[in-house]
Amino acid sequence: MDQLEEKTINTKHIYKGAIIDVTVDDVQLPNGEQSKRELVKHPGAVAVIALTDDNKLLMVKQYRKPMESSSIEIPAGKLEEGEEPILTARRELEEETGYTTDQLHYITSFYSSPGFSDEYLHLYWTDQVTKLEIRPDLDEDEFVELYEADIAQIDEWIKKKEIQDLKTLFAVQYLKLNK
Amino acid sequence: MDQLEEKTINTKHIYKGAIIDVTVDDVQLPNGEQSKRELVKHPGAVAVIALTDDNKLLMVKQYRKPMESSSIEIPAGKLEEGEEPILTARRELEEETGYTTDQLHYITSFYSSPGFSDEYLHLYWTDQVTKLEIRPDLDEDEFVELYEADIAQIDEWIKKKEIQDLKTLFAVQYLKLNK
Repeated sequence: MDQLEEKTINTKHIYKGAIIDVTVDDVQLPNGEQSKRELVKHPGAVAVIALTDDNKLLMVKQYRKPMESSSIEIPAGKLEEGEEPILTARRELEEETGYTTDQLHYITSFYSSPGFSDEYLHLYWTDQVTKLEIRPDLDEDEFVELYEADIAQIDEWIKKKEIQDLKTLFAVQYLKLNK
Repeated sequence: MDQLEEKTINTKHIYKGAIIDVTVDDVQLPNGEQSKRELVKHPGAVAVIALTDDNKLLMVKQYRKPMESSSIEIPAGKLEEGEEPILTARRELEEETGYTTDQLHYITSFYSSPGFSDEYLHLYWTDQVTKLEIRPDLDEDEFVELYEADIAQIDEWIKKKEIQDLKTLFAVQYLKLNK
């Protein structure tokens, strides 16, 4: 029993989209009163810390419409329905970087923004990557630039705010603590 | 000029809520084709790393409806319109923990989930906190439990998945790297 639980009394469906669904739930609070919760449902995602043979981190620059700017991040992508997260991770690594691996190791999972969204990310790492002869196609609305960066370069990008993505900042700290 | 830029051609307003607004934008891609972007607008937020005199981290447990479970996190909260982030940080610290400080130091800012949301978080730290004689009221729909935790306790919570919030996991790594 979770004494802080907020029980759902009613769910109002606001929007069913390609990636997100939005609902507004009426909930019963622990004190018996009612309130509303705006909820963004997301299919979940993966992200990959991938190090090359010369210890560079594979990173991709892409336009992030919510930021209205480009953002340098570790490779990542949404889960497809029924797809095992570790397979999503390998697929996204291949599509976004042109590298593959058969040595993906699970690190942890986390909620990116649990106040309003159920987006749940699974993080993997590998230091065993090989370049594909033929790079698979990206999604048709996806445009990325590939970088292979050392820590000094990454710290410079953080300073210049070219990296402002929380999962990537977490990954960089993880590398500093563990590699 | 950002060559990866996605220009907005049209914005469709889907939902205007208490915390989030949702739009679907038609965008022009770098190759001239069009696509849609689902966007969740958020007012932005703050989070605080607050250490007590005996080097414990102030943490709050609260129910997170998107997770359908309780979550242990560092104190955090949304920006009020026109409020300086550092003042939001002190206010949220006071409301959620009953401690205050006049020594908040800025660490960094980040996007929690830049694929679909513009939520931008400002992170602060302090190791100078004092207990308020009278704890200010929380929002009327907010229920939290306060913890003062050392690193061993925090690592145990991470292992048990009682901490799965990305900003909190980032903050814990930050402490390990910097304090």
